[in-house]
Amino acid sequence: MRPVRTILRGIAQVDFQPNHWTGLIFLIALFAGGWQYGVFGLLGTVAATLTASLLGADRHGIVLGLEGFCGTLVGVALVLYLGAGWMTAVVVVGAGVATSVLTSALTVVLKPYGIPGFTAPFCMVTTVMVLGAPSYDRVWAGHPDTPAPSASRPGTTMTWTDVWHGFFNGVGQVFFQNKWYVGLIFLIGLAVSSRLVAAAAAAASLIGLLVAWGLGVAAADIGAGLYGYNAVLTGIALTGTFLALSPAGVVFAAIGAATATALTAGIGNLFTVVGGHTLTWPFVLVTWVFLASVPLFSKLLRAT
Amino acid sequence: MRPVRTILRGIAQVDFQPNHWTGLIFLIALFAGGWQYGVFGLLGTVAATLTASLLGADRHGIVLGLEGFCGTLVGVALVLYLGAGWMTAVVVVGAGVATSVLTSALTVVLKPYGIPGFTAPFCMVTTVMVLGAPSYDRVWAGHPDTPAPSASRPGTTMTWTDVWHGFFNGVGQVFFQNKWYVGLIFLIGLAVSSRLVAAAAAAASLIGLLVAWGLGVAAADIGAGLYGYNAVLTGIALTGTFLALSPAGVVFAAIGAATATALTAGIGNLFTVVGGHTLTWPFVLVTWVFLASVPLFSKLLRAT
Amino acid sequence: MRPVRTILRGIAQVDFQPNHWTGLIFLIALFAGGWQYGVFGLLGTVAATLTASLLGADRHGIVLGLEGFCGTLVGVALVLYLGAGWMTAVVVVGAGVATSVLTSALTVVLKPYGIPGFTAPFCMVTTVMVLGAPSYDRVWAGHPDTPAPSASRPGTTMTWTDVWHGFFNGVGQVFFQNKWYVGLIFLIGLAVSSRLVAAAAAAASLIGLLVAWGLGVAAADIGAGLYGYNAVLTGIALTGTFLALSPAGVVFAAIGAATATALTAGIGNLFTVVGGHTLTWPFVLVTWVFLASVPLFSKLLRAT
Repeated sequence: MRPVRTILRGIAQVDFQPNHWTGLIFLIALFAGGWQYGVFGLLGTVAATLTASLLGADRHGIVLGLEGFCGTLVGVALVLYLGAGWMTAVVVVGAGVATSVLTSALTVVLKPYGIPGFTAPFCMVTTVMVLGAPSYDRVWAGHPDTPAPSASRPGTTMTWTDVWHGFFNGVGQVFFQNKWYVGLIFLIGLAVSSRLVAAAAAAASLIGLLVAWGLGVAAADIGAGLYGYNAVLTGIALTGTFLALSPAGVVFAAIGAATATALTAGIGNLFTVVGGHTLTWPFVLVTWVFLASVPLFSKLLRAT
Repeated sequence: MRPVRTILRGIAQVDFQPNHWTGLIFLIALFAGGWQYGVFGLLGTVAATLTASLLGADRHGIVLGLEGFCGTLVGVALVLYLGAGWMTAVVVVGAGVATSVLTSALTVVLKPYGIPGFTAPFCMVTTVMVLGAPSYDRVWAGHPDTPAPSASRPGTTMTWTDVWHGFFNGVGQVFFQNKWYVGLIFLIGLAVSSRLVAAAAAAASLIGLLVAWGLGVAAADIGAGLYGYNAVLTGIALTGTFLALSPAGVVFAAIGAATATALTAGIGNLFTVVGGHTLTWPFVLVTWVFLASVPLFSKLLRAT
Repeated sequence: MRPVRTILRGIAQVDFQPNHWTGLIFLIALFAGGWQYGVFGLLGTVAATLTASLLGADRHGIVLGLEGFCGTLVGVALVLYLGAGWMTAVVVVGAGVATSVLTSALTVVLKPYGIPGFTAPFCMVTTVMVLGAPSYDRVWAGHPDTPAPSASRPGTTMTWTDVWHGFFNGVGQVFFQNKWYVGLIFLIGLAVSSRLVAAAAAAASLIGLLVAWGLGVAAADIGAGLYGYNAVLTGIALTGTFLALSPAGVVFAAIGAATATALTAGIGNLFTVVGGHTLTWPFVLVTWVFLASVPLFSKLLRAT
């Protein structure tokens, strides 16, 4: 049962939770979103974790699921952008291997600064694979179209549905899921691990909604949670997880969540031009910067 | 009066001068360029400095203006690219907060190498905001068109006006100003702080002119100072400011100014494709690289 | 004769060989590819090495050719993309100077991690010059068209010619050469320095071929060696050169070669949009990441 718990913790670590029950609920959420997300997410998690294990990575980190979560996301994102097929499965395994090497490399590079690599290995590997895919006939053959929701429903007038769907989808889009009930299951999974984390995720999703609305983002994109998930990840990361809990810390986390939201369109438009996707880049970049700044701000403290 | 001097020093630090009289002259230059540059430049400087102060950044650095200059540039650049409106003011405040966090983060990351962050926080924040802006209806609503001067006047034949306008505009474009007398006021501001710095700026502006002409840049762009300002900043930074003054050092600074000029079109063309702007990226990149290389070159020495 | 040997070693160091006979054979290969590659490659090597020498770089590194190889590649690549003319010669000298500064800067920055800069200085300088070139009338005047081979011959059906040409061109494209016999001369040059290195290069070229075919790359591009040269460099670098030779190490090197191949289209497509070229970016990025990860993998060891 230990390997099973390791894999489940890998899935839970996408949201920084070393809790296999949370991982199980997350896996259920993925299958609720579509069988392919569950299957390819598992495949990526296993490929990445196994590679780390074979190359002799630190056993403690493997058991905590720290070698798995980038593989989970690679599996989910690549099946979304390339379609469910055998060739995608091969690419997911290869990408899982690559995230494992990248995870160790980033850990080494960021160690002097005491900052984790977060989902950057996933972002890097997925970005280059998606950019390259059109040149790879066998990979690109069955790829689905994934236009932004605002392509078919432009305009910035929010409906009540946009609001509450957007709230839950902000949590679900961390795993690239766009059904409100899938987001709800993820939120339940977070609450199982920690009430505080679930509250931070919910608050951050609301911040994302508000900032995006204030800037004038298309309502359909807000409703799909596209401006919420990077805020959610940033909010969780900066609320007690990597930053010590304090009044100033909570304000800092809220600013971080707002910044990740405001950064979303910049990254998204950049990638639209070259054929990539936003992924969790805004979260990674904002949380790296916000955590890196902490030692020079006397009002803030890193979590230990 | 102390807060006023701090804000003025913030403006002067765009050109590395911790001198509030220089800052006052720079502020006059901004208002001479247009009221909006003065007002939004001040707004950005205050937002960035205040954030640093509230988060508990080093008091000495704040008083020297080191927490302000990226905010100044954020204000000036965003009002140029997004237009003078209330929404731009909100974005400038938000961007000012973000540059403050980024400034500390870069300081931490670059500390092992003894290199400052320069205007990189400004470049990063402005780039992502300008890239994202078209997706933000409320932000993008009143944006002006800012075509390159060569769009309306192509051709590489330089007139005498291109030459002397280009010389002064090279100094003024550090603050994105394209009127020769504004550049002249900036040059006077520099001379108030240090004759050497003013001379370095003038020489670097000439180097930029010459290199751009030699490469065959459109005359209108040279005349607008677009190939001079990164050379000016690089020239000042490497002439006695961060690099010890010596014959080899001055040659190195001249090579740096030429390199920043030659890099300008590469950065500019890259950003044209995705919708961004050159900003002071060439200066930041070239000066980082040139300063980083110093420890391995026995003929050169960092300033202490 | 010492300066001559230094320059020849500079050329040989493109493939990590501090051997002047290998350098001589490489130079012959360049001239076999076209007089301009030999002449401009020499020009770049001399410019870079001389700059390092004048600025007072470490004498030992200069003699080993470590200050030359980025200049070699700058010369070869720029004459390919900008055409053989006097203005290109000026640009190559300027770019050679810039690579020299960048080489030292990268050495300083990467020192804490014990990783070399590889051909990154060449990639950086060439990328920004090629991106900027269309804005530089005098530089761009005589540039040739360099369409991908698949532009005139699309389709993924490999012929036997594609296979064996692709095998040799994978070695030759390290120097941007696309004639099979030029690749063969390079392979002979490698064998003169070390049989192991030549074997690693050959194996890596085959891995590149196979991975590219498996992904469904256009046959003409595979035949031209475009998916092989980054694999070749990565394979040599990770087989005993920077990574200690061991069974796990060889598997790791093979994975690295495959990863560099898979990354090629991602980098290539990105640069196609903005007007740049793949160069040896995939090798640089993959080998940096793979080497950086080594300290955390107990099955692997850096070469000493």
